[in-house]
Amino acid sequence: MFTPAQTTALLDLLKSQPVGALGTLHKGEPFVSMVPYAVFPGAGAFIIHVSSLASHTKDMIECAAVSLMVTAIPVPEGLPQSLSRATFQCQSQPYAHDQANYEAAKRSYLSRFPQSEEMFTFGDFSLFTLVPRYMRFVGGFAQAATVMAPELNGILTLVGASAA
Amino acid sequence: MFTPAQTTALLDLLKSQPVGALGTLHKGEPFVSMVPYAVFPGAGAFIIHVSSLASHTKDMIECAAVSLMVTAIPVPEGLPQSLSRATFQCQSQPYAHDQANYEAAKRSYLSRFPQSEEMFTFGDFSLFTLVPRYMRFVGGFAQAATVMAPELNGILTLVGASAA
Repeated sequence: MFTPAQTTALLDLLKSQPVGALGTLHKGEPFVSMVPYAVFPGAGAFIIHVSSLASHTKDMIECAAVSLMVTAIPVPEGLPQSLSRATFQCQSQPYAHDQANYEAAKRSYLSRFPQSEEMFTFGDFSLFTLVPRYMRFVGGFAQAATVMAPELNGILTLVGASAA
Repeated sequence: MFTPAQTTALLDLLKSQPVGALGTLHKGEPFVSMVPYAVFPGAGAFIIHVSSLASHTKDMIECAAVSLMVTAIPVPEGLPQSLSRATFQCQSQPYAHDQANYEAAKRSYLSRFPQSEEMFTFGDFSLFTLVPRYMRFVGGFAQAATVMAPELNGILTLVGASAA
């Protein structure tokens, strides 16, 4: 059971940290890269905007299973183990221009990254959705919880509602 | 060719950020988790201290190939794409107590995380080395470089030298 306090901590984490660590399968090995992300509450998913020239994009096309971790910013005096972080195990999928809700997905992304508008004119950039199957949340040292998709979906909807 | 300016940027990144995103292979999929790390210049490697109860530790024992990404802290007004980050593709290995230089490796770790001394008395925690085969460094938007092990080794030695 994910407690109300954990829900609040997760929402704060997702709202405050616009960048995640994306794990993809690269030539059979895990590979971690940085990715700016937004929540797309309508789909209970994350939205990323990536270049077809980037290796993580090629990786996602070869293997849709990805991992997205979001971590709180370390405080110099704190134990690193006490940092809040959440790992979402997701299926990635290209989001085609003619797909339903493409414009809504793009708006979700641009409401977080208005400076990225110009990148939508670059031919090599496209949207992907990351649909989480489950999340592993660690709220601090030895405080962990796993949340499955249906419950997680509701939580991601809250992110969108409060960010509007 | 990794330039002197890039070397300085990488050293600053590794010195300022004690926590990385660790990608492991988890049931055939990438999985990203948080890990505090130190540089062990004697081995041209990273040192981490992990619990056998943690899933990333079980993952490393099943598949030694891991990815460690270190990212600069986002600045609110900046484009996320301009953040410095480095991804190290590594082979992980448990570091047994009776192995050569174990004490030196432990000292490297504790010089960065003195608060973690007590965790060396926990039976389930042990040191692992992450030996990089290559690094992908992105110093900002469209400024990327790949550095292979021999050159990288020399750079990691510089981290240790200046941290002493």
